[in-house]
Amino acid sequence: MATLINNRFMLRSATAERLYFDCAKNCPIIDYHCHLSAKEIAEDYAFQNLTELWLNGDHYKWRLMRSAGIEEKYITGDAEDYEKFLAFASVLEKAIGNPIYHWCSLELLRYFDIKEPLTMQNAEQVWNLANEKIQSGLFTARQLILRSNVELLCTTDDPIDDLNYHRAIAEDLSFSTVVLPAFRPDQILDIGKSDFIAYLQALSSVANCPVNSWMELKILLSQRLDHFAANGCRLADHGMTKFTFVPTTDDEAEKIFHKKLSSPDLTLTEEEETIYRSALLIFLAAEYHARGWTMQIHFGCRRDNNSPALRKLGVNTGFDTILGDSSFVSPLAEYMSLLTEHDMLPRMILYSLNPNDDPILDTLIGCFQTGHEPLWIQHGAAWWFNDNEHGIREHLRSLASQSYLPGFIGMLTDSRSFLSYTRHEYFRRILCDFLGDLVEKGEFDKNMDTLGSIVTDICYNNARRIFIKE
Amino acid sequence: MATLINNRFMLRSATAERLYFDCAKNCPIIDYHCHLSAKEIAEDYAFQNLTELWLNGDHYKWRLMRSAGIEEKYITGDAEDYEKFLAFASVLEKAIGNPIYHWCSLELLRYFDIKEPLTMQNAEQVWNLANEKIQSGLFTARQLILRSNVELLCTTDDPIDDLNYHRAIAEDLSFSTVVLPAFRPDQILDIGKSDFIAYLQALSSVANCPVNSWMELKILLSQRLDHFAANGCRLADHGMTKFTFVPTTDDEAEKIFHKKLSSPDLTLTEEEETIYRSALLIFLAAEYHARGWTMQIHFGCRRDNNSPALRKLGVNTGFDTILGDSSFVSPLAEYMSLLTEHDMLPRMILYSLNPNDDPILDTLIGCFQTGHEPLWIQHGAAWWFNDNEHGIREHLRSLASQSYLPGFIGMLTDSRSFLSYTRHEYFRRILCDFLGDLVEKGEFDKNMDTLGSIVTDICYNNARRIFIKE
Amino acid sequence: MATLINNRFMLRSATAERLYFDCAKNCPIIDYHCHLSAKEIAEDYAFQNLTELWLNGDHYKWRLMRSAGIEEKYITGDAEDYEKFLAFASVLEKAIGNPIYHWCSLELLRYFDIKEPLTMQNAEQVWNLANEKIQSGLFTARQLILRSNVELLCTTDDPIDDLNYHRAIAEDLSFSTVVLPAFRPDQILDIGKSDFIAYLQALSSVANCPVNSWMELKILLSQRLDHFAANGCRLADHGMTKFTFVPTTDDEAEKIFHKKLSSPDLTLTEEEETIYRSALLIFLAAEYHARGWTMQIHFGCRRDNNSPALRKLGVNTGFDTILGDSSFVSPLAEYMSLLTEHDMLPRMILYSLNPNDDPILDTLIGCFQTGHEPLWIQHGAAWWFNDNEHGIREHLRSLASQSYLPGFIGMLTDSRSFLSYTRHEYFRRILCDFLGDLVEKGEFDKNMDTLGSIVTDICYNNARRIFIKE
Repeated sequence: MATLINNRFMLRSATAERLYFDCAKNCPIIDYHCHLSAKEIAEDYAFQNLTELWLNGDHYKWRLMRSAGIEEKYITGDAEDYEKFLAFASVLEKAIGNPIYHWCSLELLRYFDIKEPLTMQNAEQVWNLANEKIQSGLFTARQLILRSNVELLCTTDDPIDDLNYHRAIAEDLSFSTVVLPAFRPDQILDIGKSDFIAYLQALSSVANCPVNSWMELKILLSQRLDHFAANGCRLADHGMTKFTFVPTTDDEAEKIFHKKLSSPDLTLTEEEETIYRSALLIFLAAEYHARGWTMQIHFGCRRDNNSPALRKLGVNTGFDTILGDSSFVSPLAEYMSLLTEHDMLPRMILYSLNPNDDPILDTLIGCFQTGHEPLWIQHGAAWWFNDNEHGIREHLRSLASQSYLPGFIGMLTDSRSFLSYTRHEYFRRILCDFLGDLVEKGEFDKNMDTLGSIVTDICYNNARRIFIKE
Repeated sequence: MATLINNRFMLRSATAERLYFDCAKNCPIIDYHCHLSAKEIAEDYAFQNLTELWLNGDHYKWRLMRSAGIEEKYITGDAEDYEKFLAFASVLEKAIGNPIYHWCSLELLRYFDIKEPLTMQNAEQVWNLANEKIQSGLFTARQLILRSNVELLCTTDDPIDDLNYHRAIAEDLSFSTVVLPAFRPDQILDIGKSDFIAYLQALSSVANCPVNSWMELKILLSQRLDHFAANGCRLADHGMTKFTFVPTTDDEAEKIFHKKLSSPDLTLTEEEETIYRSALLIFLAAEYHARGWTMQIHFGCRRDNNSPALRKLGVNTGFDTILGDSSFVSPLAEYMSLLTEHDMLPRMILYSLNPNDDPILDTLIGCFQTGHEPLWIQHGAAWWFNDNEHGIREHLRSLASQSYLPGFIGMLTDSRSFLSYTRHEYFRRILCDFLGDLVEKGEFDKNMDTLGSIVTDICYNNARRIFIKE
Repeated sequence: MATLINNRFMLRSATAERLYFDCAKNCPIIDYHCHLSAKEIAEDYAFQNLTELWLNGDHYKWRLMRSAGIEEKYITGDAEDYEKFLAFASVLEKAIGNPIYHWCSLELLRYFDIKEPLTMQNAEQVWNLANEKIQSGLFTARQLILRSNVELLCTTDDPIDDLNYHRAIAEDLSFSTVVLPAFRPDQILDIGKSDFIAYLQALSSVANCPVNSWMELKILLSQRLDHFAANGCRLADHGMTKFTFVPTTDDEAEKIFHKKLSSPDLTLTEEEETIYRSALLIFLAAEYHARGWTMQIHFGCRRDNNSPALRKLGVNTGFDTILGDSSFVSPLAEYMSLLTEHDMLPRMILYSLNPNDDPILDTLIGCFQTGHEPLWIQHGAAWWFNDNEHGIREHLRSLASQSYLPGFIGMLTDSRSFLSYTRHEYFRRILCDFLGDLVEKGEFDKNMDTLGSIVTDICYNNARRIFIKE
């Protein structure tokens, strides 16, 4: 069997190769959005075998296995680790056109020096070889981060988090990678959820702040923002199924919040929920803006579609889908216009799970660029189901065509796995191929200095400027 | 003029060629969804000339001719057959980029041994040559099916059908192709249509079952399902403009059904129609599941847009369009989740007419794969307006990327024409080219055994496993 | 630095080159939709420097500069012309994948004989060279039109316009290009706008026609249509955010119009506005049909999203976005069906700003082709944000696949700039490449006569047939 991942992997022209090897390859990684566990980094968790490292918690792979007809026993069930690994191998060897095939091949090569893609034929050999290496001591959380040349990473954290692990990491001078929290206040926006009041009380108690009014809620959140800022946070994140927004006032928000506090069991109308959420989004954006933070908004995902699976396995287990609704344009435009009006539009990164939204987002962001810096409002990298060769290419093509590609903030892993850093390599190869192809087709001047600066800006400098405080 | 359809047609790499000629080409055809007439097969209808075979009833070609400015007289009007053929030739010779150009070229080559695409210059010659062959006796319904290597085909049938022709075909041991009915109960779901009550009475009378209540309606439908099952049916099909669904109960459905029966002229609200339809969809899915049937759902088509044309020419005459509405995600997810909850989710094949829905459907199906077999829930082959080179490639790419391509149930003709089997060749060539291209670009291991098994599974085995009872 | 725009620019096959140089290149330009100023043509306006010619009024370039982080001072502010030019150069040299990079390179080559793309390094040289030529007297409105081989152009005009400039141009026999007005009555349809009554009064006064009733409004508009027709108009244009429509009557429209006239400050409901607009759309389509005019409809754009920018800079300054709403299908189908029913469906050109609508529009137009001529209902060329290489290719591919490409009416500039005619070259190169590629891949017969006639029809004859009165 031939090596799949050779020097030319994804690089289909000489210009692409030069750009990748001269400019992209050696840039450190700024992974500004991921779902790694700060606890595992702080404690330098040591992995035991390839199933734990690869399959535990990876709902991308679970979904693929279910689609291939594998029984749940071999996915999240009580089968032996080796059985699960074999089941995965039997699926992966046929997963032509699926990004997981490339990701796994890259991970085997870069972390284990295994050159062949996984098949049923070499599965036992791969299992033994990989586990031997894993048990060598080089496969701890920190070792994997360091070997991947990660300069900075941002985890994703609830406002309730005490950030003790982040502090422990920061205080340990022996570990050079910067690990920052990111503020993800979804639970406080979801006033319609059944556990809203319980969450609010827990947050209030952690912060030692009462919340008997809308005003006090804002004070509480400011306190948490300060707490996050004190721990280096420069980034917030919001996830929502659909982006909805109405212009509103503190008075309206106060009325609804008071109503909910007074009758916790009461179900608010959809309109009331939208008003409350809108008021909070205005407040939070202003707070982010005042602190120089960046605000991420993720939308277009319908989560947990399979009720029995949700009951058995919980959230983030592979049962989510693209929503396919592009009604965000007007509310998002109104939101950003209002923030512009009050001079409190924070730097933003917008992500939709629907790839059809690429051209829409790329024209929408063009309406709110402020002139402070390139792409003050960004269209974030191809997200989740779009994080594959075609999705990345289309994202770049649309951004280049409708907006200004050299200002792009670049790749992130969005991952729960310490091996996912190879996705930066994957992205960088595709980026260099995309640019090289335009040059070779005679659509852009072959000036290697200009091209090189575009590559390093996208792979490193643009994110560095935003997330690294000198 | 050169031969358009040579060995390399659509096959742009050596790997693609090998896959096509070694694996795909000789697979028998399982055409599990078409609109052929069982009567014409039973009676072995003999065609008279190329206009009858090609142009009568083919609304794809009519639409193309209208778009080219041809008068209706030469399309569905009273012009001579030869005049119609000439009008079509004048359009086809310029129809660059249109799938009909490829389909016709393939049909001329495979059924008539005519190597050149049709032009005004060779039109008379083609007409004479083709008609000579047609009148030779080899152009009957059965001959065309047999020459096309069709192992099984499923027609599309109303529950009211007595299936006598299907029985006649099954009993005639001289004809080896299996011809099964498929159950398409659209009329019983469309409670808003003006002829609903009349249809209901006709169905009741055919089945000799009274329908004075929702309970009796379910009994009636069970009886028809048994009748179809007894005639070999393993497949149902539902066509709807938009997929809508609300969780509901038998009591609610009974109320609405009773209301309609009591006042046939009454117009139900849209909400009532949705409740009735939802209840019926739950009932039918459970029935399909219990019988081991596969449930097809087609949506996203707005039909009969041109009222004067509908009046003059009737339905299915070329006046349909893509709807462009992706609101199906939530209701379809709720429907499938509810069926999963009660362990009665049948095997499904979902089709949207809107190509923008490809990535949405490919992630949605991933939420309901059960582990019984690869792709228990399928995203059906590129449908109707998408059944062209680009549509097929995009469908494959998206399915491979978001789901598990080797489990794909493969191609169907969806056609009213006995010559359409060349579309399987068209699909297979594109499939092999798609796979070969990934291999040649270094994106998948060049293991011909693995690749070959993927090709034969998609072209034959996956559909065979589902539709052929051993 | 190499010349970017050589003979092979965008032409990637021998067939493509032959088609471009033998057939496309020398076709005169019929620019049937643009936003040039008739006044500037009539007065033969002479430009002063490259900033005036390139950057003043070009919101495409402004938007790109804002996205690159340029301060507004250097875009629409009070910086010196040369400073603005330098700011633009600093952005353009990195604008890989953006159509403006190609447009500017083409314009520098064709109008200034400057072979290199603009960079910071050659900016001063380009500035001096270009300005020298601009001041030579060859850079007047008329010279630029004549040098671009424009046979006919249609401006875009409000019904209130006296068309004096159009008459002056027509009467000046020394200028050979035909300059026609196009009728754009958006303001009379926007009954919800605050200045509706003021506009109505102004129109009434210009026409010397009272408007105290719906009937009188129709008489007034007929008079304006006659006035435009008398000045050579053959084309109308409608721009709307969303296309909405309900079947309605004169009586209903009269009621709503009367209500508005009686209480100018009253805000109509959205439903009332839709009824009024629908009635007017029916009336106008019939009038266009009776006069043999073509009706354009542009939708899918959400304009002026940034309120502070709108206040400071006004409309058409670079703050618009794709709306991303495909709800037009049903209302547009109902509108066209109703017009067909009454035999008053004018020739139409439909444009959506959302590229996802391409396949939807291409199937929708297929429902209303009348047989008078190829593509009586057209899907207009890739519009605005889609007017780039990928957008043009996708538009052609989808049209070819779903409709009948040889009937396509072809390119338009939609531009405010006298240099934009190179976009016809850009389009023609891409068209020839698209066709040549299909031939080279063996997907269409290599008959150069057929191919040549397709090219010249799309580039010239189809538009000529419609807009040039012999």
